[in-house]
Amino acid sequence: MSNSVQEFNDYRAKMNDKILADNNKIIKRIFNLDTNAFAEGALDVKTKELLGLVASTVLRCDDCVKYHLETSYNLGLKKEEVVEALGIATLVGGTIVIPHLRRAYEFWDNLESQS
Amino acid sequence: MSNSVQEFNDYRAKMNDKILADNNKIIKRIFNLDTNAFAEGALDVKTKELLGLVASTVLRCDDCVKYHLETSYNLGLKKEEVVEALGIATLVGGTIVIPHLRRAYEFWDNLESQS
Amino acid sequence: MSNSVQEFNDYRAKMNDKILADNNKIIKRIFNLDTNAFAEGALDVKTKELLGLVASTVLRCDDCVKYHLETSYNLGLKKEEVVEALGIATLVGGTIVIPHLRRAYEFWDNLESQS
Amino acid sequence: MSNSVQEFNDYRAKMNDKILADNNKIIKRIFNLDTNAFAEGALDVKTKELLGLVASTVLRCDDCVKYHLETSYNLGLKKEEVVEALGIATLVGGTIVIPHLRRAYEFWDNLESQS
Amino acid sequence: MSNSVQEFNDYRAKMNDKILADNNKIIKRIFNLDTNAFAEGALDVKTKELLGLVASTVLRCDDCVKYHLETSYNLGLKKEEVVEALGIATLVGGTIVIPHLRRAYEFWDNLESQS
Amino acid sequence: MSNSVQEFNDYRAKMNDKILADNNKIIKRIFNLDTNAFAEGALDVKTKELLGLVASTVLRCDDCVKYHLETSYNLGLKKEEVVEALGIATLVGGTIVIPHLRRAYEFWDNLESQS
Repeated sequence: MSNSVQEFNDYRAKMNDKILADNNKIIKRIFNLDTNAFAEGALDVKTKELLGLVASTVLRCDDCVKYHLETSYNLGLKKEEVVEALGIATLVGGTIVIPHLRRAYEFWDNLESQS
Repeated sequence: MSNSVQEFNDYRAKMNDKILADNNKIIKRIFNLDTNAFAEGALDVKTKELLGLVASTVLRCDDCVKYHLETSYNLGLKKEEVVEALGIATLVGGTIVIPHLRRAYEFWDNLESQS
Repeated sequence: MSNSVQEFNDYRAKMNDKILADNNKIIKRIFNLDTNAFAEGALDVKTKELLGLVASTVLRCDDCVKYHLETSYNLGLKKEEVVEALGIATLVGGTIVIPHLRRAYEFWDNLESQS
Repeated sequence: MSNSVQEFNDYRAKMNDKILADNNKIIKRIFNLDTNAFAEGALDVKTKELLGLVASTVLRCDDCVKYHLETSYNLGLKKEEVVEALGIATLVGGTIVIPHLRRAYEFWDNLESQS
Repeated sequence: MSNSVQEFNDYRAKMNDKILADNNKIIKRIFNLDTNAFAEGALDVKTKELLGLVASTVLRCDDCVKYHLETSYNLGLKKEEVVEALGIATLVGGTIVIPHLRRAYEFWDNLESQS
Repeated sequence: MSNSVQEFNDYRAKMNDKILADNNKIIKRIFNLDTNAFAEGALDVKTKELLGLVASTVLRCDDCVKYHLETSYNLGLKKEEVVEALGIATLVGGTIVIPHLRRAYEFWDNLESQS
């Protein structure tokens, strides 16, 4: 499986467009909520992004992990902060999280090397 | 990951043959039950197919989703019916279902374009 | 664990009121979507209720199962229709679903005996 | 939640009878398979029981864990063997398994003290 | 199910003592790691506690949620911060998280009213 | 997705090296525990490997399944023993396990054909 940042973003954008063009009200609102939930509030955006990352990691959703890694990277979160969050996720979620940790590390490397 | 209908069906058929040739009684009976569970009963086959689709979607099993999408398509279920079922699955299962929704939409497009 | 219909509904209503009074926008909208998703659309309400039931059962959420059993009951779905849906859920979700099946049967009995 | 062995067995037996009396073919066959899968085969019954225990523990199904603990106990498996299996389950499944581990220890104590 | 803070803590402490007295090396080390993972590091303890809370909520582990709610409360996290974290968890994990949200709200009330 | 044994092992080794070089204490200790948990103890290594395989299968972690299949193969476990374990996993975890079963069979074939 390719872990390229560009390829991931392109596929994600293309399919999101298709899904939203379909005009299913429930799905559109869930997409909309997703934007709102990670906006500044009582918690700052960096903390919220890490919450999204940990939720995605323990639920073992590679694409969700990549998305939150990229947003974390763009927000200026440092690798050691991200890794501490991933460490908590691995402990809470168990060793079945490890294959996803490998792909997360690879994707983070790709984020750093494309800059 | 290729999302081609033919490729999916070929791999699925080849490996199912291998598994069934192995003669493990438990596994064979589970395969057999799978055929029975979706047959006409108190509920019609279309409804049952949608139940299988939603179960597969919230459990985030891409191959199971593809299988039920193809069967739904062949039974004549309309896209908007399938999408409403997927919308319920996304709401109940949360935004981690979204990557699977992208692949489901892509596979449905492939089903339509191969006809 | 008590499986009384009245007790379940009272606790559910009381806590939902507390949660909604708290005015967290994300949570309020998710509650709101939940009402919309099961309304008549391309699929009728009975089918949607069964989709919600199966999603809840394979995800092994007892309270969600009870909620959808009660709504199914009130919509006039027959026991054999509900049981066929639960059968599909047990097959797709595996034998770990069985303890939830026991509680579902007990709750359905309570729904019938309170009428 | 009571963790009494007798209470657990009584509820389980009563509800299984109700479910099986209902004559849903899929559900009956799944119950039947459950008996077959743990019978002596290429693997001995003690090993199979531990496999069932670990599967139930990582999937965090308390009632399934209790069932396999009781069968393990009756087959003469030693506590340290059972605990090693639970240790693997906790590592693979993560710290969210720990609350289930507490209830498993309590149930095992109850199995020992009722003899 | 009682949601009393004292009762929860007493049972948790009693069973943890039993488990640790059992001297299974793997389990003891996992307990030990659990303490270390939430200590101050690149991320502060409040953020880590919220990460633990969100991981526990999407994995739908009531006892883990209670534990992280209590620690969050003792660290001085405000209710609106905790609720924003729970909102993200409900969006990512879906409406099956809602029953756990009800119990989380009830437990937080109990934490506040016992002070 | 390629199912080649060599490719799987190479990627796994390369990324594990990266992760461990990163010196996050929690993650390093979890990796270390993983080695210890499957060492000879009250249970022999073959039994423990099957426990790891079943845990990985019901949690539907393909990479974990491959890892335990390879170790099982190297320990001299016979195919029919491995298949009985996979059969229990499929029954407990449900038909959503079947796509992982297909990939497990394919990987086992690759293990046999590379010897």
